Amino acid sequence: MLSLKHLPLSSFNENLAYLHKDCAAYKVDDISTLTKIEIHGGVKPVYAFLQVVDDAKLVKPTEIALNNEAFKQINLPEGANLSISLSTPPPSLASVKRKIAGNILSSGEYSSIINDITAKRYSNMDIASFLVASGSFMSAPEVLSMTEALVGDNVFHWDNEGIVVDHHCLGGVPGNKTDIIITAIVGAYGLPIPKTASRSLTSCAGVADTMSVLTNVDIDDKTFKKLVKENRAAVACYDGLNIAAASKMISSVERQIGLTQQEHITSSILAIKLAAGVTHLLLDIPVGPKSRIKSTNEAMRLRKLIEYVGDMLSMEIDVVITDGSEPIGNGVGAVLEARDVMKVLRNKEDAPQDLLEKSLFLAGRILEFDPKLRGGQGYLVAKEILTSGRALEMINKIIHAQGKAPQPQVGHLTRDIVSNVSGVVEAIDNSRINKIGVWAGAGQYPGAGLDLLKKVGDTVEQGETLYRIHSCNSTDFAYANSVVDGYTGYEISGRPSNY
Amino acid sequence: MLSLKHLPLSSFNENLAYLHKDCAAYKVDDISTLTKIEIHGGVKPVYAFLQVVDDAKLVKPTEIALNNEAFKQINLPEGANLSISLSTPPPSLASVKRKIAGNILSSGEYSSIINDITAKRYSNMDIASFLVASGSFMSAPEVLSMTEALVGDNVFHWDNEGIVVDHHCLGGVPGNKTDIIITAIVGAYGLPIPKTASRSLTSCAGVADTMSVLTNVDIDDKTFKKLVKENRAAVACYDGLNIAAASKMISSVERQIGLTQQEHITSSILAIKLAAGVTHLLLDIPVGPKSRIKSTNEAMRLRKLIEYVGDMLSMEIDVVITDGSEPIGNGVGAVLEARDVMKVLRNKEDAPQDLLEKSLFLAGRILEFDPKLRGGQGYLVAKEILTSGRALEMINKIIHAQGKAPQPQVGHLTRDIVSNVSGVVEAIDNSRINKIGVWAGAGQYPGAGLDLLKKVGDTVEQGETLYRIHSCNSTDFAYANSVVDGYTGYEISGRPSNY
Repeated sequence: MLSLKHLPLSSFNENLAYLHKDCAAYKVDDISTLTKIEIHGGVKPVYAFLQVVDDAKLVKPTEIALNNEAFKQINLPEGANLSISLSTPPPSLASVKRKIAGNILSSGEYSSIINDITAKRYSNMDIASFLVASGSFMSAPEVLSMTEALVGDNVFHWDNEGIVVDHHCLGGVPGNKTDIIITAIVGAYGLPIPKTASRSLTSCAGVADTMSVLTNVDIDDKTFKKLVKENRAAVACYDGLNIAAASKMISSVERQIGLTQQEHITSSILAIKLAAGVTHLLLDIPVGPKSRIKSTNEAMRLRKLIEYVGDMLSMEIDVVITDGSEPIGNGVGAVLEARDVMKVLRNKEDAPQDLLEKSLFLAGRILEFDPKLRGGQGYLVAKEILTSGRALEMINKIIHAQGKAPQPQVGHLTRDIVSNVSGVVEAIDNSRINKIGVWAGAGQYPGAGLDLLKKVGDTVEQGETLYRIHSCNSTDFAYANSVVDGYTGYEISGRPSNY
Repeated sequence: MLSLKHLPLSSFNENLAYLHKDCAAYKVDDISTLTKIEIHGGVKPVYAFLQVVDDAKLVKPTEIALNNEAFKQINLPEGANLSISLSTPPPSLASVKRKIAGNILSSGEYSSIINDITAKRYSNMDIASFLVASGSFMSAPEVLSMTEALVGDNVFHWDNEGIVVDHHCLGGVPGNKTDIIITAIVGAYGLPIPKTASRSLTSCAGVADTMSVLTNVDIDDKTFKKLVKENRAAVACYDGLNIAAASKMISSVERQIGLTQQEHITSSILAIKLAAGVTHLLLDIPVGPKSRIKSTNEAMRLRKLIEYVGDMLSMEIDVVITDGSEPIGNGVGAVLEARDVMKVLRNKEDAPQDLLEKSLFLAGRILEFDPKLRGGQGYLVAKEILTSGRALEMINKIIHAQGKAPQPQVGHLTRDIVSNVSGVVEAIDNSRINKIGVWAGAGQYPGAGLDLLKKVGDTVEQGETLYRIHSCNSTDFAYANSVVDGYTGYEISGRPSNY
């Protein structure tokens, strides 16, 4: 028997157990092997990966130390008596190998894989293997199986609500924060919208990051349910909700290995929305040469896949393919995006028109899920809700209900990127703009990002500012500055300066 | 600036850096993200993955703590002043993504990937992604590129030796420890044989494990070179040698995710042998229905691949395809295999004949790399060296030179698995025997394993022992016992007991 100790280390979702190299209960002879153990003594066995310590001040030979993740799961006080045994690899890893070999996996196999991920029986390496193997090819029924498996046991039920809506955008377009505006309009209209949002994976800001600038989004299941019932709308970062747990672990590994396959994202998004009890979902697929989805063909294939999975799982999904050729709005990065969103909601004259129009279009489509609304009316109803100030009222209600945010400031280190020719902005490269923003610190620091002062079609004089870089620390600022001049992401059609 | 602290934790080849959540020099705001940092202050920047600590007793906000791996690499005393910066992902990860998408990678891309792995710029997850992606398909030129990249900078040169030999077996056959016998015979003959051996990856014992029972195999480059020059033969575990570093990290991840693709193993083995300065290599591919390579067709394809890579890298390779239909020898597991090996070298009457004959056959092939030897003479010369006791003399010389081993004992917990029918042993399932051995503790404990008392073709009476399980602790013993009855791995052609 070993005595439980808590080592307050956080390790990115993995359960780690630390044993002294001369552990009294287990022969720790080969530190080059990653060993999975089962820890007994709690309500259920806890799985963990063994780490070896050679300092008795950290962990005594009579102790077993657990990191934050494992300590929380075992739910026992320090000093509790525990026993350990070697854990056999979960049988579902055989299915991962079958996928590596190019096979189609059954629904039962996906269910076993996702259950074992949820039970923390997969190392992050195992999850990475599964994602790379399945990322190269998944049939439509496999995406369905994975989605069903990811939904998990905890599904929100919204009593007596026939229609529960939400919106999701597949991303790849910087600044595209229609979600918050849509939520305000739809909530003000009266359709329940339990908005689940994620933090940035590879972009300058996720919806949860931008919303975090305005209000607290780290709320639990109970608060989220209560607020949606009371106000019709609430925005929660799904990390804090107890739904689709495996999906979070998968996202974390996706972010770490930088692999974002549409099939995985689709099943993950649909699973989260299903677990949140959404019955009617609007899915926005932006298409552009430098967006995530590059062609209408590709978008159409993805749309068919999403519609198939939605139909099989009885979710009403309206897939819209939108223009993703350039960033939406001016701000890229959480604080700058929140500024744009608030300008739209406040009906400011300098509100970005593209963000305004896209939000109204999408909100209108969601409102038309309501059978009481005639086809084609949605846009005008949405516009009326926005211009009347009812959307602003709703966002203020949400902010008040969820609690004030710490109000981060826009990054104080700035540099203006100017045009070296006079002409017209022909194109803005989404993926380059996103990269420069990330290099400037966006995704990490809410105040970092880019403020786009010129958009496609704008005329520009030589020396005039195209965009402004904002950083929150000198390291990021220096890095963004050192790379931006190589390629600014803007394409200007030059004309003689005396044109 | 942060003050260096050593946290004596071992983490399976990954460099880890621990910062307090209120770190003075860096904003540690998002513990769900795996962040790669560069640590400045040593001779070269050290790359590490960030871990977050919420206890100032472990790591103060003014400190940066490094685990064993990173502390060794930075090579500075505790208290040294260090600065950190966010590390950008290595550009070669883009090539990994190209491989995931199904592309053929160039030689330069393999070189960049392997260099970044060597520099510890890949997390184990990144390495897993690369292995799974390339494991599904590699062209022959890709295997060549990977092999060349894996060789690395440190290559052993054996002055004035025209021929430097070694042997490798692709594995999958329990108990198959011809290597040690071959090394003794070839060394006694006088051909230099710098034998590099590995520990068990997924089997009951690697050559290094079995040799560890007899002598110390953890020797460094200098000792290894000196001993081969003095005695013509030495056996080193390649983990302890400063060659093909990336290959070790790749093996470690392969072991952890349980993925062993022939292309990777081939390039890894050839790279290690090339780095060890081997000019002539005998490669044994055992074929059997339950061996790693299941058909002659598959073996032939692999042989062509190995010959192609060898030719391009000017290594003389003799590939032999051997019978891998059942285990070789009686012992499975390090101690039991070492017993068999010593019986053969001591010319004992009860030495396993299959191990003896296979060793003579392979040693003979190696001896024939010597141009002085006429074709076909090798076997007889090898036999003469063995029966005359010169091979035993050589192994004793090696044991004496490398130092005594701790002499582990065979596992004291035993159970005889008996036949429930009388008949003839028709088949023994290699992969099942290996699994039962691993469950009994082999691979982890040298004394654990199986002693096979019956082989294919032997007659067996009902109630007679087929094999004996040996375990070193009650947990492994209980587990092996609980699963072995489901399927013993033996196929007996039953006959009536009064036959």
